[in-house]
Amino acid sequence: MRTSQLLLATLRETPSDAEVVSHQLMLRAGMIRKLAAGLYTWLPMGLRVLRKVEAIVREEMNRAGAQEVLMPAIQPAELWQESGRWEQMGAEMLRIQDRHARDFCFGPTHEEVITDLIRNEMRSYKQLPANFYQIQTKFRDERRPRFGVMRAREFLMKDAYSFHVDEASLQQTYDAMYDAYARIFTRLGLEFRAVLADTGAIGGSASHEFHVLAESGEDAIAFSTESDYAANIELAEALAQAGERPAPTEEMKTVDTPNQHSIEALSAYLNLPASRTVKTLLVQGIEDDSVVALVLRGDHELNEIKAEKLEQVAAPLTFATPEQVKAAAGCEPGSVGPIGLNCPVFVDRSAAHLADFVCGANRDGQHLTGVNWGRDLADGIVVDIRNVVEGDPSPDGQGTLQIKRGVEVGHIFQLGRKYSEAMKALVQDEAGKAVLMTMGCYGIGVSRVVAAAIEQNNDARGIIWPAAIAPFQVALLPLNAHKSQRLRQAAEELYEELQAAGFEVLLDDRKERPGVMFADMELIGIPHRVVFSEKGLDKGEVEYKGRRDSDNQYIPLAQIAAFLKERLQ
Amino acid sequence: MRTSQLLLATLRETPSDAEVVSHQLMLRAGMIRKLAAGLYTWLPMGLRVLRKVEAIVREEMNRAGAQEVLMPAIQPAELWQESGRWEQMGAEMLRIQDRHARDFCFGPTHEEVITDLIRNEMRSYKQLPANFYQIQTKFRDERRPRFGVMRAREFLMKDAYSFHVDEASLQQTYDAMYDAYARIFTRLGLEFRAVLADTGAIGGSASHEFHVLAESGEDAIAFSTESDYAANIELAEALAQAGERPAPTEEMKTVDTPNQHSIEALSAYLNLPASRTVKTLLVQGIEDDSVVALVLRGDHELNEIKAEKLEQVAAPLTFATPEQVKAAAGCEPGSVGPIGLNCPVFVDRSAAHLADFVCGANRDGQHLTGVNWGRDLADGIVVDIRNVVEGDPSPDGQGTLQIKRGVEVGHIFQLGRKYSEAMKALVQDEAGKAVLMTMGCYGIGVSRVVAAAIEQNNDARGIIWPAAIAPFQVALLPLNAHKSQRLRQAAEELYEELQAAGFEVLLDDRKERPGVMFADMELIGIPHRVVFSEKGLDKGEVEYKGRRDSDNQYIPLAQIAAFLKERLQ
Repeated sequence: MRTSQLLLATLRETPSDAEVVSHQLMLRAGMIRKLAAGLYTWLPMGLRVLRKVEAIVREEMNRAGAQEVLMPAIQPAELWQESGRWEQMGAEMLRIQDRHARDFCFGPTHEEVITDLIRNEMRSYKQLPANFYQIQTKFRDERRPRFGVMRAREFLMKDAYSFHVDEASLQQTYDAMYDAYARIFTRLGLEFRAVLADTGAIGGSASHEFHVLAESGEDAIAFSTESDYAANIELAEALAQAGERPAPTEEMKTVDTPNQHSIEALSAYLNLPASRTVKTLLVQGIEDDSVVALVLRGDHELNEIKAEKLEQVAAPLTFATPEQVKAAAGCEPGSVGPIGLNCPVFVDRSAAHLADFVCGANRDGQHLTGVNWGRDLADGIVVDIRNVVEGDPSPDGQGTLQIKRGVEVGHIFQLGRKYSEAMKALVQDEAGKAVLMTMGCYGIGVSRVVAAAIEQNNDARGIIWPAAIAPFQVALLPLNAHKSQRLRQAAEELYEELQAAGFEVLLDDRKERPGVMFADMELIGIPHRVVFSEKGLDKGEVEYKGRRDSDNQYIPLAQIAAFLKERLQ
Repeated sequence: MRTSQLLLATLRETPSDAEVVSHQLMLRAGMIRKLAAGLYTWLPMGLRVLRKVEAIVREEMNRAGAQEVLMPAIQPAELWQESGRWEQMGAEMLRIQDRHARDFCFGPTHEEVITDLIRNEMRSYKQLPANFYQIQTKFRDERRPRFGVMRAREFLMKDAYSFHVDEASLQQTYDAMYDAYARIFTRLGLEFRAVLADTGAIGGSASHEFHVLAESGEDAIAFSTESDYAANIELAEALAQAGERPAPTEEMKTVDTPNQHSIEALSAYLNLPASRTVKTLLVQGIEDDSVVALVLRGDHELNEIKAEKLEQVAAPLTFATPEQVKAAAGCEPGSVGPIGLNCPVFVDRSAAHLADFVCGANRDGQHLTGVNWGRDLADGIVVDIRNVVEGDPSPDGQGTLQIKRGVEVGHIFQLGRKYSEAMKALVQDEAGKAVLMTMGCYGIGVSRVVAAAIEQNNDARGIIWPAAIAPFQVALLPLNAHKSQRLRQAAEELYEELQAAGFEVLLDDRKERPGVMFADMELIGIPHRVVFSEKGLDKGEVEYKGRRDSDNQYIPLAQIAAFLKERLQ
């Protein structure tokens, strides 16, 4: 394509209302324009990328045996009432009345519609398993839409729903979807992790999120340096250091620690690393006015989700009042320690692994040093109640954990029978008995992938597209072409040759200054660039530069086509 | 694909609520399912067809230089208020309030959104012309949605909008779109006509509708037997018979015609064809209580749209009251004739071409025969005020007119400056002056095309797909395959070979009776069918049948692959 035939709506300035880099660059590169809060038009440049993402998703869903369908965006309230979600869904669901005052919504998801379809079409276990997907426009009325298409109100999603006669069949399709997602994000050229996710309120049996790694990501994820293990930081299992707990070497002593209420202050005051101290947090127990002690290493953070799962701890997690602390420990919160508490004591694995540690003395202004489990106090109940940190052993025993931030772009989920039960979606099993179907669901935020790819791949000059989703593969820049017939001709010939070979080429035939052309093509992020200049042609050569390269290469004009074809294959 | 991996949701019975054949067959062939009134899910079989239509439309739009974009479905009310259409649009526009009680609509069309985009992006005539299209889901809240996807509420549309610095540029793009549409419907394999359409209230300078011909079509269209001329019947110009008006041969006589009030009765009574009579209709004139006479040949129908365009005729067209008839003609309506009327007399071209005709005598119960213009009465004002009929000369002088029914699937329209004026969409022209952009718009009902294709191509057994949009190209039917290893193997081998050659093949691997397999494949309308039977294999052959063929062909097994490949190219 020629730039003269393309709406090349690049901007020099960073729009002031764009907070994240993908939003800034999508506006600046002329990929999207805002219509209203959370509503974006995809311009030709952006749509080329979106369609490439869509095509890869479609190919891999088909390859995995999923069947494409297309369900309406507008859904009748009756189905949501049947599943119970008409009331549950909050203001994020866009509710609509038609001309006859009947209730509808703009579907934020399609579990109800597909379950209604399948309960009518499927009769027998012989028709199962079956997996249906669509690539379709969804709407979620976010209270505060922002970050461009990363968290838009209207967005393009691939959603799939599978139906099974039993859990074993669900697990097979779930695994196939896991593999398909891995292939999709690999083909997209993105660094990603599939992470174990919390199944939350829906209570399915398994769930994985797929995250594109990017510093700006909303979620922190932990993953192994050696294996495929990855999990949302809230969910990653925290192990103690390897090996046995060291034997005691010190005597327990009381030290005065006036006004040292935080771990940081204490460890500075005692000139000890925070990892040699423990902190003792008192939280509400399940019985009225009861408290429970949670003991963690001083440098670790409490994981509230894990703590809430302890049977003796009240949910939501609530810290004890100063009065309760006084009653249980006899001191202010800053001096609480695990010795002599009259409440249950849960000790995080890493805290339980310490010897000769420091803890509060349960007397204001005093701590104990050289404390040892088993000798100075009972062992307590050892549990996992902290967030993992970098360097922790990986829970699968392979390597240690790294922590990075990620943008969630996919989610696979074992739904079980939540919807089939509510909506009476039955089939006959092999024995002729009517059974509820078991379901899975599998989403990819197609438009969000485009933003995530940019969050992961950019520099000060603009976007750096992975090859598979670049809007064009090659940019040809004939400089000051209006002044030189031979220069135009050389560029046109290469353009024609590459196009004929099936490559996607953008020929910049605008009458612009070289600086503008360079800046635009780097901003747009086209992977390969060829510059035609009079000076170069005098020497019979052109300049080639890959978008990630730091230097130009000078390639003989006669060889540039072959050179590019080799790189583009 | 194998039928065992496909939701093959065929139905034996015709659903009772489906009125037109395309709706019936789309349900029966398992292409669509109803979610709610006017809302349909596209099942895998239907979506394959829809995507093929979409792909052809996209290719031809790209080839014609249009750029693809994707605009939001949800549009802010402010833009519609700016164009003045927020009030004009009736209940067909689905109005929505978001969580902050701001007004939006589910876009029934996108003139406002694209004009808003382009007025912000375009500065100079150098950026024009530009033509943007999208293939996107629209919603029109029909009062009475029916006929399946033919008149659904939610539907898939290709809409394009072009922007120009002047009318000449618009005409160029309009012509290019006309050609692109012709290529699209030709490639789709549909018999269609591009017909001149009324520009109606919008008042643009030109408009064509594209109709797929089908007996069940809602619109009657007239087209030439010899040329490209075609027009909506309301708009087609009606010419008189060729040649000079014959000379008088009879004397004018008064005949008694007691109780003969209609042309049919009169022509039977006088034993003359209706085409030898004229009827004289009195309608309201533009001045108070005035009347105007409209004279047509007895076998012709008044075209009210044409008559309303006469300056002396009141709009909307209103027939004179019996009192007005009495005052103007001195008789009852059944005996009115053009001689001696005290009002303006407009004569349709064909009536003006008659000699020796019969007309009312303006005396109750009497008519005149042998009447001749110029001799027995003044010539009157000759105009075109009738509907064309089959056999009329084509207005372009080539051939005669045929009349068929059609389903409107496309519409191209010169919008002019209606939206650019209301929304102040300006660019600088060559002289540096700010001018309003001139616009065109171009729609294709993508989902409607699928239904129209079926309306045109079906028989008692089901759909007969044009090759370009068939869900599969070939169906392979191994009969009772579970009983025969060699039969399964022969079918599998052909399946693999055709798939490897890039053809779309449906292998029916269900354990169904042959009758069910035949009926399903004919219902679905796959163009080519190959049957594998034990009896055939004994003779080393298979049965081939094209969907439109009446007889089977027996093809040696060794040649069937080559035979099919030749047909499928």
